[in-house]
Amino acid sequence: MAVQFHLIKTDPSSRARRGRLYTRHGSVETPVFMPVGTQASVKTMSPHELLDIGVEMILSNTYHLFLRPGHDLIREAGGLHRFMAWPKSVLTDSGGFQVFSLSPLRRISEEGVTFRSHLSGETFFLSPERATEVQNALGADVIMAFDECPPYPAERSYVEESLERTLRWARRCQAAHRRPEDQGLFGIVQGGMELDLRRHAVESLAEMDFPGYAVGGLSVGEPKEKMYDVLEYTTELLPVDKPRYLMGVGAPEDLIEGVRRGVDMFDCVLPTRIARNGTVWTRRGKLVVRNGAYARDYRPLDPECSCYTCRHFTRAYIRHLLKADEILGLRLTTYHNLYFLVHLMQDIRRAIEEDRFAEFRSAFYRTFEIRKSEDAEGGR
Amino acid sequence: MAVQFHLIKTDPSSRARRGRLYTRHGSVETPVFMPVGTQASVKTMSPHELLDIGVEMILSNTYHLFLRPGHDLIREAGGLHRFMAWPKSVLTDSGGFQVFSLSPLRRISEEGVTFRSHLSGETFFLSPERATEVQNALGADVIMAFDECPPYPAERSYVEESLERTLRWARRCQAAHRRPEDQGLFGIVQGGMELDLRRHAVESLAEMDFPGYAVGGLSVGEPKEKMYDVLEYTTELLPVDKPRYLMGVGAPEDLIEGVRRGVDMFDCVLPTRIARNGTVWTRRGKLVVRNGAYARDYRPLDPECSCYTCRHFTRAYIRHLLKADEILGLRLTTYHNLYFLVHLMQDIRRAIEEDRFAEFRSAFYRTFEIRKSEDAEGGR
Repeated sequence: MAVQFHLIKTDPSSRARRGRLYTRHGSVETPVFMPVGTQASVKTMSPHELLDIGVEMILSNTYHLFLRPGHDLIREAGGLHRFMAWPKSVLTDSGGFQVFSLSPLRRISEEGVTFRSHLSGETFFLSPERATEVQNALGADVIMAFDECPPYPAERSYVEESLERTLRWARRCQAAHRRPEDQGLFGIVQGGMELDLRRHAVESLAEMDFPGYAVGGLSVGEPKEKMYDVLEYTTELLPVDKPRYLMGVGAPEDLIEGVRRGVDMFDCVLPTRIARNGTVWTRRGKLVVRNGAYARDYRPLDPECSCYTCRHFTRAYIRHLLKADEILGLRLTTYHNLYFLVHLMQDIRRAIEEDRFAEFRSAFYRTFEIRKSEDAEGGR
Repeated sequence: MAVQFHLIKTDPSSRARRGRLYTRHGSVETPVFMPVGTQASVKTMSPHELLDIGVEMILSNTYHLFLRPGHDLIREAGGLHRFMAWPKSVLTDSGGFQVFSLSPLRRISEEGVTFRSHLSGETFFLSPERATEVQNALGADVIMAFDECPPYPAERSYVEESLERTLRWARRCQAAHRRPEDQGLFGIVQGGMELDLRRHAVESLAEMDFPGYAVGGLSVGEPKEKMYDVLEYTTELLPVDKPRYLMGVGAPEDLIEGVRRGVDMFDCVLPTRIARNGTVWTRRGKLVVRNGAYARDYRPLDPECSCYTCRHFTRAYIRHLLKADEILGLRLTTYHNLYFLVHLMQDIRRAIEEDRFAEFRSAFYRTFEIRKSEDAEGGR
């Protein structure tokens, strides 16, 4: 088997789980946050910096790599790991989400999706078979079924129709998968905000027996409470012995709430994107280091943090770099935010191990609220 | 004394010199190439990467730091070294060159120069006293006299008038210098392409007894042969026991020709600037890795190089990053080019130590010519 999941323990006070995912590129302690390397690079970072931070698995985007540089080129280069010099685990999404969110024109049919490249305007076609073929060429450790992610809000009838097609597509992906011994193919639970459709999706996918299951279609604009409710309902139905991956979620509070509801894997562009806009997370909440208030602040971004950025540089210097359009500024904030999330996940894992996840959660909110996190940005 | 120079040996076949510069931040083996950190950051690089590469001294620009974030802020931060977390030596230019090359409007008088900021449009004034005060606040190990760099070509009468003023300004800088025990103030030899004016400049400055001398006003658009001739004439006149710094020169062949004519220090934006345009140097000449020819080239930038970039990444991957506007691409080419120049200088130093500089120079041209270097870009 390409991917195996070992459930180490479950929190007594919640559904939080401590586990370990094994791939052909090593083990991944879960719950895990996966930084996003859309175009075979986690923006501004070198692979060695990711290793220093403690990253064990990253996500890369099939849609982008299919368009540029092309999956044939990456296969020829020895696969995605070798192409980008990343020795640990990789997950690729299927391209479905990006086809719907990035392509200016698209036509969906039972067969697949015809779409225009957001780069060249050329027309391309992706189907369950094609998306799986592309992902087989890229060679990630975990690959995803080709799905449609309905928008929010959406008519129930559309969500229903879309879900049925996505389920048929999941089966076609499974049939088309040529490297099951190297790559684990995960199914994706859709169904919008309709709980009975979510149940139907889980039951249908579980019957197909995937080595892992993703929860898609959340963090697409719905209120947070709705997202947590649908997530809670869905994870409760999922097989206990398989990893659960909540797609496109990465705000610190959402990681904690996701873990609490039994999620094992997360990915999101949020930490790297807000970093490039000059916003960082600290244990006391969000800090917009671009603000004039920090011009003469000679403290580190987070005095409680021991990352490379915080050990060497001040808010004043980082603000100067950002104002002066110096790339080092983007590197330093990105490094800090990824370190923050990776270490938050480490702390979460330790709390679960020590049966004190509920306390950890309360303590986190007490300090994180000090500088209230007003951001509700999503992004996958 | 803030800065001391120890001349270790001179090449028997040329005027190449092997020396060592001592500053309050360590020793610097010469001949040395100093990467440029215009805005208190060598573009795309972290200070720790510069240390890994073997950089011992960098240059930063007074004009830029004076405008943003301001020298008062940097003094308050503990000086430039601490502000940017750079533990080794720093040289700041005086701002003279940038006032003339970057400011959209300027008025020059005996007192100094009034100019408009290229950032805000606000009016500022720099004089010998003010430029020295700013450099005292920044706290670099070597600071430069405030000078005017006449354009090329220029009327002899203008060059003469400008030189006399620059010499009076040099004296005023010396008088205004408040930290001679921490910072070595270098004089700058101007005089355009007029050999007798160059001689007059050297004699006048030598009388003022600076701890080092720069050759300015070269690499400003004149033919290479003219530059080499004026340089050769000038260095021959300079005091043997003081370091000589050729400003704004950094193409590999110019470093070799400069060393051959007795230069000890160089700086230039060329390696970092061409890197960001997708051009790198190799022992076999220039390689434009952005070119389509390298799309499926899975070799390192330079198979003979052992830098971080060449040990881990292929031309195909770096080209992909550059085409996809990924910052890591700029980092990897910049790292490589700086490593190339720093190691070229190491090889030059070893060749001088072993009395084989002439052979080294011939061998360099033999291989470097294979992929003919067509570039004649200048830049300081």
